[in-house]
Amino acid sequence: MARAWALKSRPNGMPQHTDFAMITLPDQPLAEGQVRIANRWLSVDPYMRGRMNDVKSYVPPFVLGEPMQGGAIGEVVESNADGFAVGDMVQHMLGWRDEAVLPATEVQKLPALDVPVQAFLGQLGMPGMTAYFGLTEVAAAKSGDTVFVSAAAGAVGSTVVQIAKARGMTVIGSAGGAEKCAWVKSLGADAVIDYKSGVPIAKALAEAAPKGIDVYFDNVGGEHLDAALSAARMHARFAICGMIDVYNSGAATELRYLARVIGNRIQIRGFIVSDFFDRRDAFVRDMGAMLASGTLKREETVIEGLNAMPDAFLGLFTGGNKGKMLVRV
Amino acid sequence: MARAWALKSRPNGMPQHTDFAMITLPDQPLAEGQVRIANRWLSVDPYMRGRMNDVKSYVPPFVLGEPMQGGAIGEVVESNADGFAVGDMVQHMLGWRDEAVLPATEVQKLPALDVPVQAFLGQLGMPGMTAYFGLTEVAAAKSGDTVFVSAAAGAVGSTVVQIAKARGMTVIGSAGGAEKCAWVKSLGADAVIDYKSGVPIAKALAEAAPKGIDVYFDNVGGEHLDAALSAARMHARFAICGMIDVYNSGAATELRYLARVIGNRIQIRGFIVSDFFDRRDAFVRDMGAMLASGTLKREETVIEGLNAMPDAFLGLFTGGNKGKMLVRV
Repeated sequence: MARAWALKSRPNGMPQHTDFAMITLPDQPLAEGQVRIANRWLSVDPYMRGRMNDVKSYVPPFVLGEPMQGGAIGEVVESNADGFAVGDMVQHMLGWRDEAVLPATEVQKLPALDVPVQAFLGQLGMPGMTAYFGLTEVAAAKSGDTVFVSAAAGAVGSTVVQIAKARGMTVIGSAGGAEKCAWVKSLGADAVIDYKSGVPIAKALAEAAPKGIDVYFDNVGGEHLDAALSAARMHARFAICGMIDVYNSGAATELRYLARVIGNRIQIRGFIVSDFFDRRDAFVRDMGAMLASGTLKREETVIEGLNAMPDAFLGLFTGGNKGKMLVRV
Repeated sequence: MARAWALKSRPNGMPQHTDFAMITLPDQPLAEGQVRIANRWLSVDPYMRGRMNDVKSYVPPFVLGEPMQGGAIGEVVESNADGFAVGDMVQHMLGWRDEAVLPATEVQKLPALDVPVQAFLGQLGMPGMTAYFGLTEVAAAKSGDTVFVSAAAGAVGSTVVQIAKARGMTVIGSAGGAEKCAWVKSLGADAVIDYKSGVPIAKALAEAAPKGIDVYFDNVGGEHLDAALSAARMHARFAICGMIDVYNSGAATELRYLARVIGNRIQIRGFIVSDFFDRRDAFVRDMGAMLASGTLKREETVIEGLNAMPDAFLGLFTGGNKGKMLVRV
């Protein structure tokens, strides 16, 4: 019997284990054009927190009591669709469960690349595309720029660090705790700020980038964003990817340095990775080559078993992961 | 004997009359290439508050005890420079004084247009250029857009309202008090918000623009900016021109709706009018024609006499002006 996680109650602030419930899914015979997939890898991502609220957003809210969704990699175990055979490794959006039944039109076969399949949930998937297009398109970062990236030990941030270094930029990352900071440094960052050290981020950034920053890749908002404003050089570009600091608290963001946008002609631009989905093929070729050649290091934090999936999700908000957080089924 | 206002002390918060001192200027014979100008009109502008602080910014700070500077229109009364004759009406940046001596290279003759000369400190000058390029270039506003503009009764804001209407946009302005709101409405605004009414600006804006806004022209920052974020539609563009709310207080800006930049792909861009000085000639032709034809209404608040210039300046922060605030010498 297939099992899935459902949202039982909408969290107020930080989600609790009691907000999740494991449910069993009814037997579902395959309709014409459908495939049955045994999920092998499931993704947890910060944006899912937004879907737990009952508010209109760029993705619809999760329905209480129904299986949640998210990125997943699995193996076709039954096919009623042309072009899909048992054994094919595929990617789709019916995660948070061990088995998925869905139309083949909503399933993508994995490209034949010499990388582990779970990379398609990380650097070759949504987090990788977010890093790649956010840095190079939204922030228009170029060789010679000084780039500041928050949550630099996360799935997106750690990829931003590595792409930026591969393209000739100076990179300052921010991460929480000595171990993560050392890891970000090992990825090639020129300097790393430990935001848990007690030093105000603006002060630490001023020391790490005495000449200021040209680009800020924002995953967290809040004090990091304000620090980036304080350090921004003329014509700096900010790509706003996430604001994990406020996803749970809902608190107002206090910005002391916002008026700098005027004198320094700062551009701040929010984006969603789906804006770039039509360029996925070119992205997979470019990033796939960087991964295969070792230019990009792959790092994953793997949680074992569907039962532990809420732990994996909650760990995103408490600094529980280095690189991409994954659940292996 | 020529007289000028000097900054006597750097204000902490809202400037006081005691921060200003009238000084007399030493007799200054004309050097080769210089002109002497009897100033007729002097400009006070919110950006001057920034020059009163001793911090690096896009314009250098005023020097304590020395004459302040600012936009001025005057008549050449003595010339030692080719191309300038007694009687020429000119524009320059040695304001805050009744007589100016400076190199002719820092003086512009006024174009021969059928408009009162003081318009070159308003709609044909810096405030007009700010409105024009901020709206059409920085925010890329186009026909059909819904535009929100704060400080809509000010020199810049009232011009934004009128350009936007002339270009087929829907316009919501914000101003303080019934009289100013009525005036902004008379300029063509489709709706006006009275920010002094006690209704939260976000609520008032949601009622005035139930489908949201495409463009926000920001002169004030603070609660207005947050309201604009709350109402921003997909791909909204914000041109950040000024943040008069924090010029004096220095307080942090609290934004409850900042995370909307992500889902709605909002672009926020700061600018300074000098970025567009190389396009001044085209601007004067276009705006001059709109003024001459009556498409733009000219409104000025005139304070009489150099002695009252600090009153004029302080009035900018207490809502003392409709349209452009000017001092007539």
